[in-house]
Amino acid sequence: MAAEASPHDLIAKHRPTLDQALEAIRTRAYWSPHPEHPKAYGEHGSLSMSDGKSAFDALVGTRFDLDQPGTDDWVGGEVSPYGIELGVTYPHPDIDALLPAMRAGMRAWREAGAETRAAVCLEILARISARTHEFAHAVMHTSGQAFMMAFQAGGPHAQDRGLEAVAYAYVEQVRTPDAAEWTKPQGKRDPLVLGKRFTPVGRGIALVVGCNTFPTWNGYPGLFASLATGNAVLVKPHPRAVLPLALTVQVAREVLAEAGFDPNLVALAAEAPGEGLAKTLALRPEIKIIDYTGSTAFGDWLETHARQAQVYTEKAGVNTVVIDSTDRYQGMLSNLAFSLSLYSGQMCTTPQNLLVPRDGITTDEGPKSYDEVVADIAAAVGGLLGDDTRANALLGALVNPDVKARLEGASGLGEVALASREITNPEFPGAVVRTPAIVKLDGARKFWDGAESEAAYLAECFGPVSFAVAVDSTADALDLLRRTVRDKGAMTVGAYTTSDEVAEAVEEVCLDECAQLSLNLTGGVYVNQTAAFSDFHGSGGNPAANAALCDGAFVSNRFRVVEVRTEA
Amino acid sequence: MAAEASPHDLIAKHRPTLDQALEAIRTRAYWSPHPEHPKAYGEHGSLSMSDGKSAFDALVGTRFDLDQPGTDDWVGGEVSPYGIELGVTYPHPDIDALLPAMRAGMRAWREAGAETRAAVCLEILARISARTHEFAHAVMHTSGQAFMMAFQAGGPHAQDRGLEAVAYAYVEQVRTPDAAEWTKPQGKRDPLVLGKRFTPVGRGIALVVGCNTFPTWNGYPGLFASLATGNAVLVKPHPRAVLPLALTVQVAREVLAEAGFDPNLVALAAEAPGEGLAKTLALRPEIKIIDYTGSTAFGDWLETHARQAQVYTEKAGVNTVVIDSTDRYQGMLSNLAFSLSLYSGQMCTTPQNLLVPRDGITTDEGPKSYDEVVADIAAAVGGLLGDDTRANALLGALVNPDVKARLEGASGLGEVALASREITNPEFPGAVVRTPAIVKLDGARKFWDGAESEAAYLAECFGPVSFAVAVDSTADALDLLRRTVRDKGAMTVGAYTTSDEVAEAVEEVCLDECAQLSLNLTGGVYVNQTAAFSDFHGSGGNPAANAALCDGAFVSNRFRVVEVRTEA
Repeated sequence: MAAEASPHDLIAKHRPTLDQALEAIRTRAYWSPHPEHPKAYGEHGSLSMSDGKSAFDALVGTRFDLDQPGTDDWVGGEVSPYGIELGVTYPHPDIDALLPAMRAGMRAWREAGAETRAAVCLEILARISARTHEFAHAVMHTSGQAFMMAFQAGGPHAQDRGLEAVAYAYVEQVRTPDAAEWTKPQGKRDPLVLGKRFTPVGRGIALVVGCNTFPTWNGYPGLFASLATGNAVLVKPHPRAVLPLALTVQVAREVLAEAGFDPNLVALAAEAPGEGLAKTLALRPEIKIIDYTGSTAFGDWLETHARQAQVYTEKAGVNTVVIDSTDRYQGMLSNLAFSLSLYSGQMCTTPQNLLVPRDGITTDEGPKSYDEVVADIAAAVGGLLGDDTRANALLGALVNPDVKARLEGASGLGEVALASREITNPEFPGAVVRTPAIVKLDGARKFWDGAESEAAYLAECFGPVSFAVAVDSTADALDLLRRTVRDKGAMTVGAYTTSDEVAEAVEEVCLDECAQLSLNLTGGVYVNQTAAFSDFHGSGGNPAANAALCDGAFVSNRFRVVEVRTEA
Repeated sequence: MAAEASPHDLIAKHRPTLDQALEAIRTRAYWSPHPEHPKAYGEHGSLSMSDGKSAFDALVGTRFDLDQPGTDDWVGGEVSPYGIELGVTYPHPDIDALLPAMRAGMRAWREAGAETRAAVCLEILARISARTHEFAHAVMHTSGQAFMMAFQAGGPHAQDRGLEAVAYAYVEQVRTPDAAEWTKPQGKRDPLVLGKRFTPVGRGIALVVGCNTFPTWNGYPGLFASLATGNAVLVKPHPRAVLPLALTVQVAREVLAEAGFDPNLVALAAEAPGEGLAKTLALRPEIKIIDYTGSTAFGDWLETHARQAQVYTEKAGVNTVVIDSTDRYQGMLSNLAFSLSLYSGQMCTTPQNLLVPRDGITTDEGPKSYDEVVADIAAAVGGLLGDDTRANALLGALVNPDVKARLEGASGLGEVALASREITNPEFPGAVVRTPAIVKLDGARKFWDGAESEAAYLAECFGPVSFAVAVDSTADALDLLRRTVRDKGAMTVGAYTTSDEVAEAVEEVCLDECAQLSLNLTGGVYVNQTAAFSDFHGSGGNPAANAALCDGAFVSNRFRVVEVRTEA
């Protein structure tokens, strides 16, 4: 087919952005090409706020035709956590037809080379970026995120993570030159001379298994890392969060075709209710790479059974904040309150266990007892969410009934320090909106209810529930932190201390157990947020995830280098 | 302990070599700091030929004490393929005592940082290099390689592969800076500012499971990649090839101690006869990385069962040479004869199946029938090995009775085009020395004995046996090549053709199936040899091996990066 956007033009257009991304992952200073402010859109071909809303509204109730081969029938049944039935149907694949069609374009994609693949990926991201306002509504009405978060996390931040993956993939592929001349001296005889050519080759078809809460943010790194390294990519979205990834696949197919490549290099695999399509796909011999975000049970299943594939998983974990002391007590309280509230705690990075010595802590406002610290955190959350408009804007909606059930069960686990409150969303009366609950537990294993208590705080309680765990000392807190990360995994660890010794000790635990540490955050950065190009999301070294976003290890096994050598 | 060789001094001493290695893996031009000529040694503190021999002789019959904790008793029973009983005994570990002792030094090793770890590794390699003549005898009398090959492949080439792994490990770790300042603009408000520190942390204890034929060459990449990335390394040698790795561990422990680190960061795990220690070690929770070279059966077992570890395997494969046409017939014959003869075909890279069209090929000496091509290859081998002194110097000795049995069984598989010949080694009358056999098979699946024939040529027949497989056409040869690589794996592929179309087609198969291709080698470079810093050994993308030596993927999962961030 004729290339409407030639690879050459795409390279010229995007090479400067790629170079900036390469520089950013090297320095890890702040950088992003994707504006965070909604008002930054609406010019230079990007959708304005109202156009984005209209575009989303126009999708509701339609058949989302991607013109994919092997489309048997149409499936879909997304209901927004805000109560709207999306009514969109998607192609349901005959995988015996779709998978071969996806492989057909791989040779040309391989021959395009790393730079062209990166440029095509950047064009896909640029077109997604232009539709950020449309994606924002799609993410909002599948994840339950509040609009501003859906806009930022589902838009520019997700695009950043995708671009970061492209940058890592690119640099990994060009570490080996395309060609080399090798001349080995042989003393007085003629040297041995070989010409060598090196080609990065993708592994096959990559499967992205999307999640409900962050379909784009958690989906883009694997999708773009695999595509940029020469693989075809099949996207199997969570059945409750199809639309954002269907839009993504649509844009990718459009750009691939315009650039002269086979659009089937990227395809969507929507599933019928209860079909369990991910399991079927994961065991297909054509699938060589799998990226998954979700439950530990299915992540472990993939790692155990999908042996023909490289499997990258982000699973459950138990995130801890160690509270030893602070010289900015109010800052600590407000920072924690925000972390616990954002998206109703439905982030894999949200703190769950707040470890507080039972004899209290020292602060710039004098000593505070365990009860005081817990009450003050509870009050800070209450204050932050006291206004319903603000509460709605921060909390979003509960993503599914399981989260609601878990929240309702939490009050039985211990003394409730902060009860969850029901909030009405005037714009979306169907939304289930709840403020976070804080439950007191005792972390002493010798305590009479120690075992029961431990069963609670050592399990992931995904959603707006945190545990204020009383520990005997900061040393005990560090022991519990170590045990938690080692046995349950953690995406994040937080700590507050004014003591260099304690800071060093908590850092030592995090280095030993491979967990990412945020120390003494009291301002506008939160433990549950990471910035692409600078922060690693997860470490890949504890049970919460077997890979980090994004490092060399995340991309290096997605391709191999084939060498052809011949006498010169 | 006091550092006799300070990290600072080691960095000053070795940084230039590291920088050259980094440049070499980037350009993939020829480079090596380790001389290949035996006479290059004997000055600047390195052992001369005679001193190396004396040092080896002095080891025979001794207890090889490494001063390791948890040494229960002493084991050993190596018998040289040249007939000498080595009589060396090695520490047999109590692994419940040894593994914790190995972990003890990991914190200091982590804190040393990537550059110091690289410098320590380079000092280990430099001291091994200085003892190359001693290692040559140790490799010769465990692998059965002839002296010159044991010297080169077991010495400088192995050291090159170790250094290459250190270079990859170093560059992978320093992709992320030690520290960064992150300043995010907030419009009119103050920017958000965070200080970030990044630390590469090893995964735990790495296990190297050594092989019989190339204890150092195949052992060093994993050993040095793991050590350089902050892990402790436990070396479990093949029970018939302990000495070269025991010497390696000895040098590593000596250098670590002198540099102020815990020598137990590197330890030896020799085993009692029939103990199956690799299996026990591979499932220990402390073992987080495994490097293995050997049978497909045990490699597959490791990949399936050692789920707590990153497992890197090099297993069996079936290497193919496609013979379509040539314009240097004599060069082709002599090149193939050398490839088939070197170390009695006991290399994972030795060609096994020579695919020749049954209607013959075109050459610069006119058309040659299938029978003529096979007879000419056989004659070339016969000529190369006609002189017993030269034959002994090329063939070495059969490494174990299994190889001999396989060779003896090969004559029953088809018409023998070249019979194996027994050669006496006057210096070592106990050596079992055999010239290669070439057996004719028919590659047509429709042929009456097709199934039996296929069973022969589609199984690895490790040792001095190759099959001259008659195929209907070059196109059929390519189909068989594709099927062989896909189903059985291949470390190497060779091809001879004067046709650009055929060259492109064979390259296409290799790109599709991920195999390393040597095209039209007629001079002094052989398909079974790869040069560190330039050639990849294996691809990691077909069943013969799940990793290549050496690329980013070989090192990137051996460590994780832990980030600590705090408000600036």
